[in-house]
Amino acid sequence: MDSHGERGDLPGLEQLVPKQGRRPGDRYVRIVSPRREFRRAEGHYVATDAAILPPGQTGRILAGIRHKLFGRPLATEAEGSERLTVATGYAILASDNISSSAYATEEAMRVLALAGVAALSLTMPIALAIVGVLAVVVLSQLQVIKAYPNGGGSYVVTSDNLGRVPGLIAASSLLIDYVLTVAVSTAAGVAAITSFAPALHDMRVPLGLAFIALLAIGNLRGIREAGMIFAIPTYVYVLSLAGLIGYGLFRVIAGDVPPPAIPPDPVPSTGIAALSVLLILRAFASGSVALTGAEAVANGVPSMKAPETRNASMTLILMAITFGTIFLGLTFLAQAIGVVPDQREQETLNSLVTRSLVGDGFPYYLVQVSTAVILALAANTGFTGFPRLAAVLANDRFMPRHFADRGERLAFSFGILVLAALASLVLIAFGGSVTALIPLYTIGVFLAFTLSQTGLVRRWLRLRPGGWKVTAGINGVGAVVTGVVLVITTVTKFEHGAWMVLIVMPLLVLLLHGISTHYTAAQDSLVVEDLRQDLPKLPQPMVIVPVARLDRTAVHALTFASSISDHVRAVHIATSHETAAAFQLRWEAWAADVPLEVIVSPYRSLVPPLLTYIERVGSNSDRPLTIVVSQFVPRHWWEFFLHSQTAFRLKLALLFRPDTIVIDVPYHPRES
Amino acid sequence: MDSHGERGDLPGLEQLVPKQGRRPGDRYVRIVSPRREFRRAEGHYVATDAAILPPGQTGRILAGIRHKLFGRPLATEAEGSERLTVATGYAILASDNISSSAYATEEAMRVLALAGVAALSLTMPIALAIVGVLAVVVLSQLQVIKAYPNGGGSYVVTSDNLGRVPGLIAASSLLIDYVLTVAVSTAAGVAAITSFAPALHDMRVPLGLAFIALLAIGNLRGIREAGMIFAIPTYVYVLSLAGLIGYGLFRVIAGDVPPPAIPPDPVPSTGIAALSVLLILRAFASGSVALTGAEAVANGVPSMKAPETRNASMTLILMAITFGTIFLGLTFLAQAIGVVPDQREQETLNSLVTRSLVGDGFPYYLVQVSTAVILALAANTGFTGFPRLAAVLANDRFMPRHFADRGERLAFSFGILVLAALASLVLIAFGGSVTALIPLYTIGVFLAFTLSQTGLVRRWLRLRPGGWKVTAGINGVGAVVTGVVLVITTVTKFEHGAWMVLIVMPLLVLLLHGISTHYTAAQDSLVVEDLRQDLPKLPQPMVIVPVARLDRTAVHALTFASSISDHVRAVHIATSHETAAAFQLRWEAWAADVPLEVIVSPYRSLVPPLLTYIERVGSNSDRPLTIVVSQFVPRHWWEFFLHSQTAFRLKLALLFRPDTIVIDVPYHPRES
Repeated sequence: MDSHGERGDLPGLEQLVPKQGRRPGDRYVRIVSPRREFRRAEGHYVATDAAILPPGQTGRILAGIRHKLFGRPLATEAEGSERLTVATGYAILASDNISSSAYATEEAMRVLALAGVAALSLTMPIALAIVGVLAVVVLSQLQVIKAYPNGGGSYVVTSDNLGRVPGLIAASSLLIDYVLTVAVSTAAGVAAITSFAPALHDMRVPLGLAFIALLAIGNLRGIREAGMIFAIPTYVYVLSLAGLIGYGLFRVIAGDVPPPAIPPDPVPSTGIAALSVLLILRAFASGSVALTGAEAVANGVPSMKAPETRNASMTLILMAITFGTIFLGLTFLAQAIGVVPDQREQETLNSLVTRSLVGDGFPYYLVQVSTAVILALAANTGFTGFPRLAAVLANDRFMPRHFADRGERLAFSFGILVLAALASLVLIAFGGSVTALIPLYTIGVFLAFTLSQTGLVRRWLRLRPGGWKVTAGINGVGAVVTGVVLVITTVTKFEHGAWMVLIVMPLLVLLLHGISTHYTAAQDSLVVEDLRQDLPKLPQPMVIVPVARLDRTAVHALTFASSISDHVRAVHIATSHETAAAFQLRWEAWAADVPLEVIVSPYRSLVPPLLTYIERVGSNSDRPLTIVVSQFVPRHWWEFFLHSQTAFRLKLALLFRPDTIVIDVPYHPRES
Repeated sequence: MDSHGERGDLPGLEQLVPKQGRRPGDRYVRIVSPRREFRRAEGHYVATDAAILPPGQTGRILAGIRHKLFGRPLATEAEGSERLTVATGYAILASDNISSSAYATEEAMRVLALAGVAALSLTMPIALAIVGVLAVVVLSQLQVIKAYPNGGGSYVVTSDNLGRVPGLIAASSLLIDYVLTVAVSTAAGVAAITSFAPALHDMRVPLGLAFIALLAIGNLRGIREAGMIFAIPTYVYVLSLAGLIGYGLFRVIAGDVPPPAIPPDPVPSTGIAALSVLLILRAFASGSVALTGAEAVANGVPSMKAPETRNASMTLILMAITFGTIFLGLTFLAQAIGVVPDQREQETLNSLVTRSLVGDGFPYYLVQVSTAVILALAANTGFTGFPRLAAVLANDRFMPRHFADRGERLAFSFGILVLAALASLVLIAFGGSVTALIPLYTIGVFLAFTLSQTGLVRRWLRLRPGGWKVTAGINGVGAVVTGVVLVITTVTKFEHGAWMVLIVMPLLVLLLHGISTHYTAAQDSLVVEDLRQDLPKLPQPMVIVPVARLDRTAVHALTFASSISDHVRAVHIATSHETAAAFQLRWEAWAADVPLEVIVSPYRSLVPPLLTYIERVGSNSDRPLTIVVSQFVPRHWWEFFLHSQTAFRLKLALLFRPDTIVIDVPYHPRES
């Protein structure tokens, strides 16, 4: 054991190079800084690109592939300060809601069609009711924007005003909804494509999965970049649908109503159910999917250019007008022309309306392709929202901390991967059908709306700012209306799949709560209360070195053991008295003076008697126990199969024994 | 760092309990031995049953289940000394060969039937030729028994006389054949059952797998026990078939030939191929499967009662007579009655012969069930042979050493499991069909025969004992005859599956050779040449402690680090200059005086800059490097997902860096 324990002997990043002077006896010390890998800045070292290059050829090749696929790493300082104008904010934040017009009318009609084609005449009144709800929601959201200029997601607003459990319920609703946003938008996007390419209908699940994978890769490359890629299509969609609706209205007014295009498998003209109030409410609930995505603008206030509140409000109003126009326009045209939905979901209603009006030339393909692309954009909203919310929840210690880690490209990589996996599973489970997914979708949206509006009412009652009665009134109406829609949706959709959400949501709330409890307990137990306390002084450990053979790995382990403690003992497990005696003999012939204990294990097992031995010695000793195990490291990974992994098994067995540390000392055959 | 480094302070299994004497000042030390877990014997400690009891409730429950399924552990001393008499040896060692009579005739007939039912008249001449080959093989094997009273497996005989590479070829042939023995016997056993229970025909693969699993469990319980369980059925099979054949011959001689029983799907009476010499040779090759298992007696000489050589020779001769009688008798009866095989392999030829003669009463079921059971016994021969040969090869360093480890019940557990897995895969791949498996089977048997007979010829030429010319002549004829059969089998069966064996065998030889090269190199690099050398004296390590937060886990890790070395340095990776400065400030406020380096990682990655840091410090230091990482150990296993596994990732990354030891210091929240 060496004796020069002075503090000076502590090599760090700066190298002290002794240099011989010109005359014998002269000596200098030159300080060499590791410039290439670490530079000094603001009193700390900063790792340079050279420092994060993986060592070894394989590592570099893998890193190269990763960078090709996901882009080169971005420094934390590169965090985007670019803000959204109304024009770009509209394209990015409003696209989720606007894209709902691609399937909302159809979903309402599908339910009505159960009572026969004649019942489809109720579609327009239902659409008007839905737009009315949208107006109330938008008015409420305008209050949210004012109250939470730093981003008023339902989770923030609810937990801020109603407390922890309602906040967690809102968070769970949103997490589930983001997963469904991705699944539904992907399924609808694929349906827009299979409308003009029926041959792909059987491939819809693999197509959807490829879609999700592409979005995941795009988002792993970095959120901002992915957002911008998709900005233009929103305008293409809005403009092409505006053109279509304008042309259609002109023809209807001119009395030149075209004959309806026929889907591959039209719904039967006589219904299978009576036209009841319940059925009408169910159609309304299905159509309410139109309101999904309406919360995105309020969430995204901090990403708008100043004045943020005003710009966000403008964007929200523009969004509502655009959506309302397209939704009502398409609904009106579908009814005026007399289009009926396709039973097998191969051709969409919008495709039928478009085909009736313009045939299948270029305008038709423009509408279909831009629909598919805006639905991709809507799915992308899920990829923006889920990882961000998960990161907020992780920072609040409700979700595993991996969700809060930013990856090489500043994206919340873990959240993106988890979302992609969950959405893929849902897509597979529901066979890529939009209609099957819809009942699960709307509940979460309206639950979150109801909770945040209620939270705002409570906020106004508490803070009472100027004009609080008006705003409280608006939010109160909002809470009641969204609450009523929530009840309608839950009741009418319960047996069609909503029950699944009602099971998953409480479980998710419990999970988030459990994680938080764990983290808080762990945190509490880890806190250092008193910084005035010095490190406790431990005696040198008692080191036990299990030795299988007296070979170089054993010598290596014993050498290391002796360098960290003066209290070293070897132990050998033999399978018979003969081998025990032989080992003892060879040990005694060895020049090194290390005390040895030999234990015969009659059942040939290695680890159990070793564990018991350690247990006994531990209870006989007042020093902390340390086990040093030599581990032979072969040159190639597959050669590991040829060697027993006793070190690993011992470590696993001792992991939960307090105050016992297992050190495996790797032995590389090339060190001789 | 404590100073009392004397040798006395080394707690071991014996506990020194200080006792206060009667008068103040009196002190004694009582030595307490850990009687319950370790007893002294022959100068060593011996672990008792209490020492191998797993700690913790879960471990004990698991051990309880294991003991129920596989039996309680057996001590090494319990190794069986029970030897086999001619009567028991016949039942156990000869059963593999005798059981071949359950399918050998049918396999030859299947090939002949390709040339039409008329060609079946050639079955008897072919059977006579096969029995001729058997006679030559038995004569040769009698020489093996004399020459290798310690067990003359083909591997031992060949590598002893012809060298390493031929020895490995013989070993590979045998390993492959043991796998096929299990697969073919299982398939044939299931066929014996589906003959009288056709409903199970579609279930033949799962049935076969269940069969293999049962055999594996039986053998894991211990070889001897499993062998005895199956001793009686051999006699039941031999006696019932002797009765059947005697009765059949009587009826044929009396001119009372019964009409043939008709299989569910008889082969067509007009053939699809011409009756060529090649086809006849192919039928002969198929029938040669009759010789499989003929080497078992020579392998098993050491397990016979004294005089081993004489008893083994007797057993071998009895085996040949039994097999020849049953094989020729069944072949004669099949032809005399005019039975044709079943195309779908649902009913066996033996079942048809039996059914023709005795109908489907009790005698029929006795024959079928005893056939199924003796085939299970034959499959069991694979379970005896494969693990034993693999253990021999592992001891010779040609196979991973796990194969040489005896399990709790003294069985070579690893070999048993590997064999069961491989045989199951083969059974699944070939859909449980005996006929599909046969072409793969015979090559290995005859290759091993040819090699070992050639080896013996060489041995006699070298040693020239009394009467060597006769024995060399016998073995020479044996080598030539088995060599000719080997060539016939290879040529006629090549395209029917034999090519697979010809691909797998060289690969297996290369693998065995590669493993041996690795072990020899590893062994050479590990050997301690000079026992007169003391342990090298290493300086205390330079200890680097990566610290994420200044919490108790960090304090715990630093405390341990300080107990093993005076040269400790903490390093913190920060993601920004702000957090870096905050950490530094808190560190300086802390009373403990541990030097710290803070590194800002602009890309937020943790492990790569740490690795580069370690690399740099390592090159600046002449001490061995040790990294101490704290690892938070939660109370429940699933909570591991909530904590980052940096320690593990660091360890993996540093595994191949020489002279660097990563110590993870587990921190249990309950230690406070």
